[in-house]
Amino acid sequence: MQNTVKFTKPFLEICKKVNTRKGHLIQPCRTKVLSVQNMNPHVKNMEYAVRGPIVIRAGEIEQELAKGVKKPFTEVIRANIGDCHATGQKPITFLRQVVAICTDPERLMNDPSYPADAKDRARRILDSCAGQSVGSYSDSSGVRVIREDIAKYISERDGHPSSPDDIFLSTGASDSIKTIMKLMMTGESGKDRAGIMIPIPQYPLYTATIAEYNAHPIGYYLDESNTWALNIPEMKRAINEARNHCIPRAIVIINPGNPTGQVLPRQNIVDIIKFAKEENLFLMADEVYQHNIYASGSEFHSFKKVLTEMGPEYNTMELASFMSTSKGYMGECGFRGGYCEVINLDPDVKVMQLKSISAKLCSSVSGQAVMDVVVNPPKPGEPSYDLFMKEKDFVLGQLKKKAEMVTETFNSIDGISCNVVQGAMYAFPNIKIPAKAIEAAKAAGQKPDAFYCFQLLEETGICVVPGSGFGQVDGTYHFRTTILPPTEKLQGMLEKFKVFHGQFLQKYK
Amino acid sequence: MQNTVKFTKPFLEICKKVNTRKGHLIQPCRTKVLSVQNMNPHVKNMEYAVRGPIVIRAGEIEQELAKGVKKPFTEVIRANIGDCHATGQKPITFLRQVVAICTDPERLMNDPSYPADAKDRARRILDSCAGQSVGSYSDSSGVRVIREDIAKYISERDGHPSSPDDIFLSTGASDSIKTIMKLMMTGESGKDRAGIMIPIPQYPLYTATIAEYNAHPIGYYLDESNTWALNIPEMKRAINEARNHCIPRAIVIINPGNPTGQVLPRQNIVDIIKFAKEENLFLMADEVYQHNIYASGSEFHSFKKVLTEMGPEYNTMELASFMSTSKGYMGECGFRGGYCEVINLDPDVKVMQLKSISAKLCSSVSGQAVMDVVVNPPKPGEPSYDLFMKEKDFVLGQLKKKAEMVTETFNSIDGISCNVVQGAMYAFPNIKIPAKAIEAAKAAGQKPDAFYCFQLLEETGICVVPGSGFGQVDGTYHFRTTILPPTEKLQGMLEKFKVFHGQFLQKYK
Repeated sequence: MQNTVKFTKPFLEICKKVNTRKGHLIQPCRTKVLSVQNMNPHVKNMEYAVRGPIVIRAGEIEQELAKGVKKPFTEVIRANIGDCHATGQKPITFLRQVVAICTDPERLMNDPSYPADAKDRARRILDSCAGQSVGSYSDSSGVRVIREDIAKYISERDGHPSSPDDIFLSTGASDSIKTIMKLMMTGESGKDRAGIMIPIPQYPLYTATIAEYNAHPIGYYLDESNTWALNIPEMKRAINEARNHCIPRAIVIINPGNPTGQVLPRQNIVDIIKFAKEENLFLMADEVYQHNIYASGSEFHSFKKVLTEMGPEYNTMELASFMSTSKGYMGECGFRGGYCEVINLDPDVKVMQLKSISAKLCSSVSGQAVMDVVVNPPKPGEPSYDLFMKEKDFVLGQLKKKAEMVTETFNSIDGISCNVVQGAMYAFPNIKIPAKAIEAAKAAGQKPDAFYCFQLLEETGICVVPGSGFGQVDGTYHFRTTILPPTEKLQGMLEKFKVFHGQFLQKYK
Repeated sequence: MQNTVKFTKPFLEICKKVNTRKGHLIQPCRTKVLSVQNMNPHVKNMEYAVRGPIVIRAGEIEQELAKGVKKPFTEVIRANIGDCHATGQKPITFLRQVVAICTDPERLMNDPSYPADAKDRARRILDSCAGQSVGSYSDSSGVRVIREDIAKYISERDGHPSSPDDIFLSTGASDSIKTIMKLMMTGESGKDRAGIMIPIPQYPLYTATIAEYNAHPIGYYLDESNTWALNIPEMKRAINEARNHCIPRAIVIINPGNPTGQVLPRQNIVDIIKFAKEENLFLMADEVYQHNIYASGSEFHSFKKVLTEMGPEYNTMELASFMSTSKGYMGECGFRGGYCEVINLDPDVKVMQLKSISAKLCSSVSGQAVMDVVVNPPKPGEPSYDLFMKEKDFVLGQLKKKAEMVTETFNSIDGISCNVVQGAMYAFPNIKIPAKAIEAAKAAGQKPDAFYCFQLLEETGICVVPGSGFGQVDGTYHFRTTILPPTEKLQGMLEKFKVFHGQFLQKYK
């Protein structure tokens, strides 16, 4: 489950051979039209740590194990990516039933083993598809009834109206995040470039997208000493320093936090909205983990709800909120369902936004159908309600337990501290790396946290992502681990981790 | 099935009201952070005619009809987009069975009403998915066994080897076309910008993408008098003129042609490859209609095959070939399946390419499963073979008949000429627009072909796309129509068209 790149070495070798037969050049070797020297420099600058070098190495190790190479472990534990089903989570029955019926209605719409409410959902979606087929293109912004269901879900969640005309479906949340960011990209170099405020640590899609569009990242540090809260004076510092390098346009907030697992209190959100208004920033709220709240006292407040309730000075602010089918209790990453609600967008800009997505035609209609189930699940009294609630509660209950287990275990280890995992699917523990290990990392040409994570991988098979892939205060070191492996496996992983950490400290003390 | 944009007028009106109560400004209206003036200018420059203004108008007319507004017709015929299922084409049974089993294996893998070969295919795909679920992320480049099946399909099609490591799956072909183009985008302004050669007329995804990345389109005119052939002297003219404006990097060829419906003879492909070699261009072959060949004597030759057979001077050239699940006989647009085979790419560039797609995580796994069926259909002797072949042959047979019908009918109309629709799904007839109509169009602020197509829509309900959306020789006028409506409906459409055209000539004679 990773990218392994096999280089076509033979060609390069042939080139060398041919060119070195002095004076006897049989055939001139064609120089590549496209090289790293003459390619798009912004693509070169992109980084995406969640599938970076350590994950490539994990894949190699898996292949080595498969070939019978002896290791101090028998399997790689992939705690690098929020991929629920890959770590054994079972799909929600009702969700898959609806999508299966949409896929083969001729056979399944009348199958007595499928429940009536799943059939009703599927029929309603198909009736809104051209030719009643999920094989036809939808509107660029998505199937109409699905957008209506999303608007209804948001209205009920927040207690404030939402319009299907403000919603567009996308290939995961990533796709709509890029669509919205792209609208703001102006200026080709220097101070004229758009600046986008992002939390540090952040989910690396943001820095990757900013690099791709040659914009300027304005990193604001989350307050690790205060459960990764967003600290307004720090945000002011960040934006003021950035004005010499760019024109600040937007602020990204990830709530619940990735990789940091915090859930923002309402007052923090109020302060952020006030800040964004003062600084004239477009609000981008990454709210894909809105179902993943574990800590007692924590509650999800959408930016839309808070901004609406802040009244006339604030409720006309531009806000994009992103949601995904890949997280929550469903964890349907492979279907690539996602949506964005954009409110208060200038109507002329909205025309441009719709035009810009129309060339992509539409997102996967089966992914859209998955999203429909997420926003329109079985209701009390419907035949699938009990099973659906049981499955949903089981997944979220397990995640809650695992969040607690991870927090407790890391905090019990000498030299590691970890904020409470209040929500999302990750912990981002702080590790004290001894000076000798830092030197050894330097000698190896690695960042200290990468050095640590690579050793962890080689010695235990545990694959986590170094904090440097997400950003961190200079001189501090972290890693991101998911809380997704099944309870027993996670427990085993944490025990192995403990042992490794002790030996690492010993080795470099 | 279109984008209708409802403007939030009330807000703008409130703003006006508040601001005009002289000296009594109750509340300052927030200026939009993002406006058409300060947004990304490249997004503003994008155009995508296939879902442009005429299609938006078609949607409005449908809504008017639904409300009971009287029109000279009772339904809109959407001949603007290659959306097979939307016009009534039925899905291929085997394909949907495999995807349904992949979606709900718990229930369907043992269902006796599903054939064994569909189950085998589904099991094989699931075994290659992490956690055996299509709900997990795949490799960024796609599920391994599906890439293997694609490589096998290409090898068998061409008689030359293909490697799964050269293949990546994408969200339709559009997504991989953008990925490859993006690699070549360099230079921010003026002569330093990348130039991409595209046919005129072209599929507007190309101009939209070029505009989005601020590159320079180098249009080479297809030879309408020679069945839309690619004319090498014309290509030389185009590239030579362009050198003052950009650095030419790549050439796009669409074969079979969209919107032009031609199928390139082998010799034409040989000449193009020679030209690309001389000019040091990256070859981009849009081959999504490779199954759609109708004219006797026409045959599909892949660029990969021809280039490979041209021997050592040519077989190391960089080439990307694009394929989709949306076209062919399956017409599965909504699943957004697609792939790209890139050969001879510089290994270091390949690393960058894989990195650039990794931030998108992966394309829809159910779309990938659809692609797997396309490249690995039932074989003789398997239980689903006969039905599969019957359904496939029926669709392609109907398309062949419709291609002939459309060519003949248009050529029978005074003032219209139409090249033989040899392949793909479109005709691009040439219409002589009378001088008076051109004047009337000018007065109405419309391009003459758009003026013609809008009248066609308003008077007959037929929705086709003006030639100006694809590009055409100055002073000539065309439109693109699909050949997709069911035979009877298409016949009726062509008859209505004939009448309209006669009346139009009469009106403006």
